Amino acid sequence: MRHFVRGAAESRSVGPVDVARWEQYFLGNALPFQAMWYSMAPGITSPRDCHPEVELSIVIDGTASVEVGGEITEVRAGSAFLLGSEEPHIIHNRSAGEELLVFSAYWMPGTSGADGSAALDGPAAEADQ
Amino acid sequence: MRHFVRGAAESRSVGPVDVARWEQYFLGNALPFQAMWYSMAPGITSPRDCHPEVELSIVIDGTASVEVGGEITEVRAGSAFLLGSEEPHIIHNRSAGEELLVFSAYWMPGTSGADGSAALDGPAAEADQ
Repeated sequence: MRHFVRGAAESRSVGPVDVARWEQYFLGNALPFQAMWYSMAPGITSPRDCHPEVELSIVIDGTASVEVGGEITEVRAGSAFLLGSEEPHIIHNRSAGEELLVFSAYWMPGTSGADGSAALDGPAAEADQ
Repeated sequence: MRHFVRGAAESRSVGPVDVARWEQYFLGNALPFQAMWYSMAPGITSPRDCHPEVELSIVIDGTASVEVGGEITEVRAGSAFLLGSEEPHIIHNRSAGEELLVFSAYWMPGTSGADGSAALDGPAAEADQ
């Protein structure tokens, strides 16, 4: 068993976002994805991001206001959101007083057959709310 | 973008543990792992579990007291723990009043080269605390 302590993780600022990437744990090929935590102070908006990796994010604290295609989805603590490859996104922390903390796993499409597309093209009604 | 709402997820009881598996989202091969949320009321101990899948867990609410090899590690909200393939484990929620909520990703060793062993055999001092 290994224990990864968020409060002890090394992080760096990427614009207004504090990012703690898991490369610091030297996990090699132990996981079929890369991982990070990121946090944003109240009122902060991330830079627009767009990358080839598919990204699954779990909101741990606060609420992520996830802007995709001009629409914002509020993702509350405990819930999750999945971004497709090359899907542009902006994350807002619109809270007045609460930090936003997110765990993200990300991987290149095609990883162990995963392409991300099924999640985005498939019937979404049961999950999109 | 897809949104997975924890509060709206279908779950079932596995002994004293409430488990919401992500098979309900019909993600197909979109992710290179399986996923679930699980929650445990205060004072609850899970059955001893042991499975071939490597499992990475993120604590969202509460504190997971993770028992492996007779030792207990306290994993607080925001932090994570990684269990190896066939590593027996028991999860306790030793809080008097707080629910434990965990997100877990799990996959078979060998998934996209991932074997889990590097994480468990490698130098762990920087992460085990």
